[in-house]
Amino acid sequence: MSDIALVLIDVQKGIDDPRMGVRNNPRAEENIAALLKLWRERKQPIAHVQHNSTEPDSSLRPDSPGHAFKDAALPLDGEPIFQKTVNSAFIGTNLEDWLRERSINELVVAGMTTDHCVSTSVRMAENLGFTVTLVGDATAAHGHASPDGGTIRADDVYRINLASLHGEFCTVVTTESVLGS
Amino acid sequence: MSDIALVLIDVQKGIDDPRMGVRNNPRAEENIAALLKLWRERKQPIAHVQHNSTEPDSSLRPDSPGHAFKDAALPLDGEPIFQKTVNSAFIGTNLEDWLRERSINELVVAGMTTDHCVSTSVRMAENLGFTVTLVGDATAAHGHASPDGGTIRADDVYRINLASLHGEFCTVVTTESVLGS
Repeated sequence: MSDIALVLIDVQKGIDDPRMGVRNNPRAEENIAALLKLWRERKQPIAHVQHNSTEPDSSLRPDSPGHAFKDAALPLDGEPIFQKTVNSAFIGTNLEDWLRERSINELVVAGMTTDHCVSTSVRMAENLGFTVTLVGDATAAHGHASPDGGTIRADDVYRINLASLHGEFCTVVTTESVLGS
Repeated sequence: MSDIALVLIDVQKGIDDPRMGVRNNPRAEENIAALLKLWRERKQPIAHVQHNSTEPDSSLRPDSPGHAFKDAALPLDGEPIFQKTVNSAFIGTNLEDWLRERSINELVVAGMTTDHCVSTSVRMAENLGFTVTLVGDATAAHGHASPDGGTIRADDVYRINLASLHGEFCTVVTTESVLGS
């Protein structure tokens, strides 16, 4: 059987910068840590994706303390880190080559944020031919201003973005279902 | 001043196949037609993107009547058509090369559907370095089943997916604002 890669996206301290908005799902980190533990136990491949922001004020700039991985997702020696400057984990990185070289066709994705970097990376992964499982409750979203002037709550951003991905780009599952598989 | 390309995504008859779900924004086609008229008057570049589904039962398969462009978006002779088999208009097509060869850095995007092919193409365009304006009311979405078993109405899919794109990947505007610019 081929390996299944766990791809963790932008699990970095700066994601909780209050300037990004109110965040939902405080259990995301606990779920991410549980997935990481399982992948290490099973000796399956793990890819850590880290955002190197180029925005002047971002807390995800490489020179900001927020650039660091959260404790829940600290890479171990030997686990590869793919650094990116845009939302997609497949643009400007060698993640695709790394997966192809290992004949990995299946990805389990988790991380931050549901509708920005996670959604973009899941969409592109599927469009490049990978089979993607997205662990919805191991992601989190921020609330947003709507272009028409309203405000969208983080829980609605999260729920509806997962629905837009499910069935078209990936299968959305829970951490519990992955841990029990 | 550089040209600004109008990129119309999947404005095809099969989008209204009832199997895709209940659709919102019946005015999308009228708005798309108005954008197309303006771009032709201004002699600005137009890129038509057409989906060639590879799904066995899809009404967007090349051998299905639903594959045809809608009357509102029929290409004229000389206007290029970029055919794709996945959501992103930039995967498996030469759209990016066509834009770069013409030194086009700015795109105005409209078409179908808001949260699937439009969102994916807008995200990838921005991540590839293009500046994107998305004409929200010249797109439309379908309702979806949620992974947790609920149902998300088309208007909510549309509104929240536009909010997730706005400010991060593009500026979402109205047709009226483009026509008055």
